[in-house]
Formats: sequence, structure tokens, C-alpha cells
Amino acid sequence: MPPEPPRRTAGLAERAVIQVESGASTPAQDCLAEEVPVAIHYNGEPHAVMMATPGELEDFAYGFSLSEHGMGVDEIAQVLREDLLEGIRLDIRTHGALPAALQNELQRSLPGRSGCGICGHRLLEDIIQQPPPVGVGLRIDAQALARALDELQGRQPLNAASGALHAAAWALPNGQLLAVREDVGRHNALDKLIGALTRAQVDRREGFAVVTSRASYEMVSKAAIAGMPMLLAISAPTALAVDLANSCGLTLAGFVRPGRHVIYSHAWRLQAA
Amino acid sequence: MPPEPPRRTAGLAERAVIQVESGASTPAQDCLAEEVPVAIHYNGEPHAVMMATPGELEDFAYGFSLSEHGMGVDEIAQVLREDLLEGIRLDIRTHGALPAALQNELQRSLPGRSGCGICGHRLLEDIIQQPPPVGVGLRIDAQALARALDELQGRQPLNAASGALHAAAWALPNGQLLAVREDVGRHNALDKLIGALTRAQVDRREGFAVVTSRASYEMVSKAAIAGMPMLLAISAPTALAVDLANSCGLTLAGFVRPGRHVIYSHAWRLQAA
Repeated sequence: MPPEPPRRTAGLAERAVIQVESGASTPAQDCLAEEVPVAIHYNGEPHAVMMATPGELEDFAYGFSLSEHGMGVDEIAQVLREDLLEGIRLDIRTHGALPAALQNELQRSLPGRSGCGICGHRLLEDIIQQPPPVGVGLRIDAQALARALDELQGRQPLNAASGALHAAAWALPNGQLLAVREDVGRHNALDKLIGALTRAQVDRREGFAVVTSRASYEMVSKAAIAGMPMLLAISAPTALAVDLANSCGLTLAGFVRPGRHVIYSHAWRLQAA
Repeated sequence: MPPEPPRRTAGLAERAVIQVESGASTPAQDCLAEEVPVAIHYNGEPHAVMMATPGELEDFAYGFSLSEHGMGVDEIAQVLREDLLEGIRLDIRTHGALPAALQNELQRSLPGRSGCGICGHRLLEDIIQQPPPVGVGLRIDAQALARALDELQGRQPLNAASGALHAAAWALPNGQLLAVREDVGRHNALDKLIGALTRAQVDRREGFAVVTSRASYEMVSKAAIAGMPMLLAISAPTALAVDLANSCGLTLAGFVRPGRHVIYSHAWRLQAA
């Protein structure tokens, strides 16, 4: 996968606003993030609906199918997109049968799973699941981390325009960013990234993920299922995210800023400079 | 409802971490936000599961029931809490029958609704719903807004300790904060606030809500259904949130900081100083 060119800025909308500063009101046009209901169907059967940014939804379909249902890129024949008045429908068509658990869910009209990997479920017993251990993966040094953070600053056009989006990025071992995806939902941004990487057949053992959001349980779960050995978050993790990262072998760091960060699990992959 | 005393800090957990700064690594104990699966049941029937901060869950049960199902405080007989190994179960027992739409969902094993008011649904047609118009409500001036922001700074003990939580606050017309609720989920924080206000029979027409998060579609929807005339967000709104606020009469402001903010709808409630 060659490094990506700058992306188009679909997903923005203008609205009339009033800017107030020091008591003075000024009418203006403001650039806002679009937020659209996106329905995921499998082979025509409705599965889940999420609020998402309308760009790069094919990546989203592939990433969601992997991180939520373990479906590899080879299992998906095509993603049919239909833009409707009430939102966007993505119908994911598979070559063969769906995974048994997903097929059961659809047939029994069980609650659809959602982008966050948790809500939509009804029963506590279904929630916390142990992903397989991630591979040994790589070690990175402080220079690689600094480079990734630096590049990420300039690679979030939707957030730069609207201030309302999360980003998920994939970096090579030297810190060069290979792909960045943005979404109003942090789980969606990560799913879009996972989908982009799987479609380009990028080896997820040889690189690391950086997300601008917090690292919750579901973020670690999705990263681990996608085979990512490291998840670096600009903001804070939760205790459950740390416990999951520890148990599945993933290196989790938070509060990642230039020159400093906090490592919560498997620190050996983050070498000192 | 008298102003609240400082709250306990349930919802925090310690973990061993490595703090890295300028190449130097220091082992430390870090305070993290707890994140727990919380299942909502109605009269014993499972409905939805969300990841949430484990404190003030009775408020959450009341707020969720109002903002997602229109159930008033008088309809709820009690909330039974059960702490299990896999999470926390809240069984909301009602005096009479459940609202018909909710009863149908439970009986037909339709997807459970979730805290975000959207995911868990399977069909696009179910998603975007117009809340009733909010009342005329109040006007506030710049001093009230400044006071609310100032008080909110010191009223987020969980976030101060962990950096991982959202807060939702209710302010009187003069800006004095009446209640603050925190949660790892921004929808949950708002639902906890709504529950606290309804349980204390606070008139939601006479005050305004401040949230530390972004204002997405579901945040405006929940505020409007709870009868709140104003929602002020520290971060950005989405375009859909602005459209909904415009159509239901709610004043939505974003990027609310000391001395400046941006008004996206019904600006008349926010007077200049």
C-alpha cells in the first residue's frame, strides 16, 4: 500500500451560525461534520445501524466485518451502497455462507451488533470476549512515535475544518503514516482504518495504530482482533481497556504527546530513544 | 433540589504504568476510569447493554427511561441493581404496563436500544425521529454562562483523576450548577443528569445543560425529549444535531469557552452581556 494522497473532504456541511466573542455577535458560515445513519446489511438481511461520517464507507464495511465478525477480506464479494433519504444502506455480499454466529443472529432476530462492539446486545454474558493473542510484532523507538504524531497533525482534513471528528492512523515501523481515516465515531474511524488496511493487504503485524480519541475496551478489542500489536491513544484509556490489552499481548499507550506518553501494557515494544 | 455536595469518586481504578517523558521511563501507579457493562432490563426482560461508569446508575436508569422511552419518574416503581461478575444488571420495575412501543420491542425480540439512542437498531427507518418542540424556556446572559463554565471546572472529580470522562451539568438561570454527572460515555452522562433532575422534580424549562463533549444528533434528541431548552457543548456539534435543534426549538451552542462561543440555533435565548 503506497502512502495515500490527500483525501477529499466529503463529510462536511455548512450552516449559518452566530459567533460570539467578548460580547460581540458576528453572523458567519460554519463548517460542520456531517453525521448520517448508516445501516449494515449482510446478504440483504438488516444487521445494525450506526451514526457515521459518510465517506470511505466501503472501508468501514470491510473493517466492521473483520473487527466484529472475524470476516476476512476474501469472504466479501462486494459492498452495495444505496443512498436513501433517511441514511445510507451498505449491503455486504459474501461469497459463501456467513459465520455461524452472525447467521444465527440474523435468523433469530437477535439484537444487531453495533459499531462500538457492545451496544445492541441485550445480555451481559455476550459482552466481554477475549480476543486471540496478538503476534509479537515490532518494537518502535521514540523517533518513530514522534514522526507518526507529527504527520497525523496534518492528515485530518475533516477535523481541521469542523473540530468534530476522531482519527485512526496506521504507521510503519519508522513512523511514516500509511493511512488515516476520520469519523464522528471513534469506533467507526478505527473500523475504517482496519478495512483500508485489509483491502490493501497490509500486514498489521508490522506497524502500529494511533488514535486521536480515548482507548476504551472496544477500541482495544477491535485492534487486537485486527492483529495490531500496538494501540497508541492521544487521550486516556479505561481500566478495562488496560486489562484487555494486558491479557491479549497488545501494547497500549495513552496521553501520547510529543516527548511524553504513558504505557499501560507490554511496554517492551516501546523502546526508549 | 439543593446544590449537590462533592460526590464520591467511585468509578476509578489503579493500575501500574510506565510514564515516559523526554526519554526517561518511570514506573508509577495511575488512576484510570472504570468501564463496566451495564444491562438494562424492564420488568425482568433484557433490553440493552452499555459500557458505563458504575456510579449513579439509578439516575441513569431513570434518565435512560425518559430520554429513550418517554417514561416519567412516576411510572417507575424501583430500580433493582445486581452486581455480577460480568457487569451490573439494572432491572427497572414499573408500576403499570410499559409503553406500547417498548413492550413490543421486548416481546418481539427486536434489537435493544442503547444509550446512544441509535445503535442497536437495525433499520434506517427507525432512527431519526422528531422530538416534540421544547418550551420557550429562559434567556441567559454571558455572566450566567461564564459562571456555569467556571463551576464545572471544579465539579468533575472522576475526570480530574483519570482524564477519561465526559460530564453533563444542569445550571440555574444565573449559572449556578445544580447537578453534575460524569461517565465514560457522553450519552450516559446526559442520561444520568436527566435522571437526577427528574427524580428531584427539577423543572427543566428553567435552566440550561452544559456538556463537556461534542453535541451529536442523539445528545440534542435526549435533551429535547427531557424538555431542556438549551444545550451548550464545550466541543463541536454535527450538522444533523444543528438541524434537529433548529427544528425542535432548542438553543444549541458549541465551542463554549470563557468569553466566546458559537450559536447554532435559536440564538435569542443567549443574550449578549
